[in-house]
Amino acid sequence: MTKVLCVGAAVVDFVFHLPELPDRAEKYGTESASIVGGGCAANAAVAVSRLGGEAILGARLGDDAIGDMVVAGVAAEGVDCANVTRTPNARSSYSSVYIDQRGERQIVNFRGAGLKLETGWFAGLEGLGAVLTDTRRVAAAVDALALARTCGIPGVLDGEAPVDPGLVSLASHAAFSMQGLRDLVPGLAPEEALQKISAEHGCWACVTDGENGVWFTGFDSIEHIPAFAVTPVDTLGAGDIWHGAFALALAEGQDEASAIRFASAAAALKCMRSGGRDGAPSRHDTETFLKEQDV
Amino acid sequence: MTKVLCVGAAVVDFVFHLPELPDRAEKYGTESASIVGGGCAANAAVAVSRLGGEAILGARLGDDAIGDMVVAGVAAEGVDCANVTRTPNARSSYSSVYIDQRGERQIVNFRGAGLKLETGWFAGLEGLGAVLTDTRRVAAAVDALALARTCGIPGVLDGEAPVDPGLVSLASHAAFSMQGLRDLVPGLAPEEALQKISAEHGCWACVTDGENGVWFTGFDSIEHIPAFAVTPVDTLGAGDIWHGAFALALAEGQDEASAIRFASAAAALKCMRSGGRDGAPSRHDTETFLKEQDV
Repeated sequence: MTKVLCVGAAVVDFVFHLPELPDRAEKYGTESASIVGGGCAANAAVAVSRLGGEAILGARLGDDAIGDMVVAGVAAEGVDCANVTRTPNARSSYSSVYIDQRGERQIVNFRGAGLKLETGWFAGLEGLGAVLTDTRRVAAAVDALALARTCGIPGVLDGEAPVDPGLVSLASHAAFSMQGLRDLVPGLAPEEALQKISAEHGCWACVTDGENGVWFTGFDSIEHIPAFAVTPVDTLGAGDIWHGAFALALAEGQDEASAIRFASAAAALKCMRSGGRDGAPSRHDTETFLKEQDV
Repeated sequence: MTKVLCVGAAVVDFVFHLPELPDRAEKYGTESASIVGGGCAANAAVAVSRLGGEAILGARLGDDAIGDMVVAGVAAEGVDCANVTRTPNARSSYSSVYIDQRGERQIVNFRGAGLKLETGWFAGLEGLGAVLTDTRRVAAAVDALALARTCGIPGVLDGEAPVDPGLVSLASHAAFSMQGLRDLVPGLAPEEALQKISAEHGCWACVTDGENGVWFTGFDSIEHIPAFAVTPVDTLGAGDIWHGAFALALAEGQDEASAIRFASAAAALKCMRSGGRDGAPSRHDTETFLKEQDV
């Protein structure tokens, strides 16, 4: 199995469905709520695992009940959590998410306290095919991308704002959100921004823009791959699923254009299912979807 | 030790502190959050335990992680959770609580799903001194108050709206909030409402009104006991602490006026400490406070 190390956030979201978003200092009640595992790295790791890869999670948690919930949810998906850092007396991160009947979403995130992400164990990993990291925990992201360089494997950066320029230089592949791209290179059109990043940081770069598709640095110009036309039900976690699938595809040796198509298919399928990362598709479903699109 | 059976809600509150209450469909972050055990019955049981009584919790939970958190929090306070109903595949209740810098509070409560409150074990309890129940789970409240009648011990009803009139008739002592009193007897002044309830339902009755004190049905008129003058820091759970302390005092044989003073002292001390029921005072602190007030 192709191994992918996923480094970054692993949290729990407490999701409440309400007719309208609350707007007064009062008590509201609902019969509809769910507890959903979240966080870029945990979501991506679950996607890798469902898509037939071996996912190794590098995340930071407290030695608390929230941390137990995070690990239980991810481990149940077959993700390797053996090296997740559990810091005594630290407090794990979690969020409260309110979703109204039109799908509008309000999130309050507790960032956690006293959390550390140990990376000393990275060097002992064998047979890795790719590394994926987010931009939030910069020191750990540096260690993750340096490991990929050392091993000569793809080092994928999930380029969410704020983006540390040093991380982009270390990455072999930087996949930005529109917000992340604008944060790193303000004032330029996406195509120009990608060319500037590719030239200045020496890495392959792309920007994902949901239903508008993906722009990426091609052979000698910026290329565009449209998104698959689907009717979204729930986009929560779709970006993370995209990054996990993209890193797995690169690890398997697919070229960037194929990896984008594979990742976009996985993300499209996820958007058609409710429940955050619980909607991440299997390998079989993703490949079937891709074949159907080719007809 | 004096035993008090506390029947009703046991939940977890995920509390987030923010400069302002959120009012847009966006992502907010905070460094300040806490996970606080809540629910009337669980809070009252913790108060009873800290005040030197033996608290037995009758509550309904799912066989889930939230239920584990509830039981762990209450059991750590010495509360007897042996008979708490854990229903397989049911989902425990929990809330998200946002508090702004002025102390304004917005609560979204998930009521849980598939929960049952078993009461068959009530009859096996020996040496009970009092029973306390809330108004929400009517069937269980009926069983709890009937047990008190059978045993000839105080059966205290925490009269929060909506109040089922049948429960008031079963209770020996009905302690209303202003909202609960108005719900049961609309359109009357508190004194008249209490007299009407006492006459119609044959029970002792009182209404607690925070800093305005407590009115109750005395020997032949409505009497008033003022609240202790304290500067509140956090009122979360204060009403539940009051009910737990009141039931314990009655169970110990205190008369109603003394029990009100004891309960009001415990609630006042709680209000001077932050952190919901974590601010419930010890017996020693409560008695010291009462002595200081007598000087």
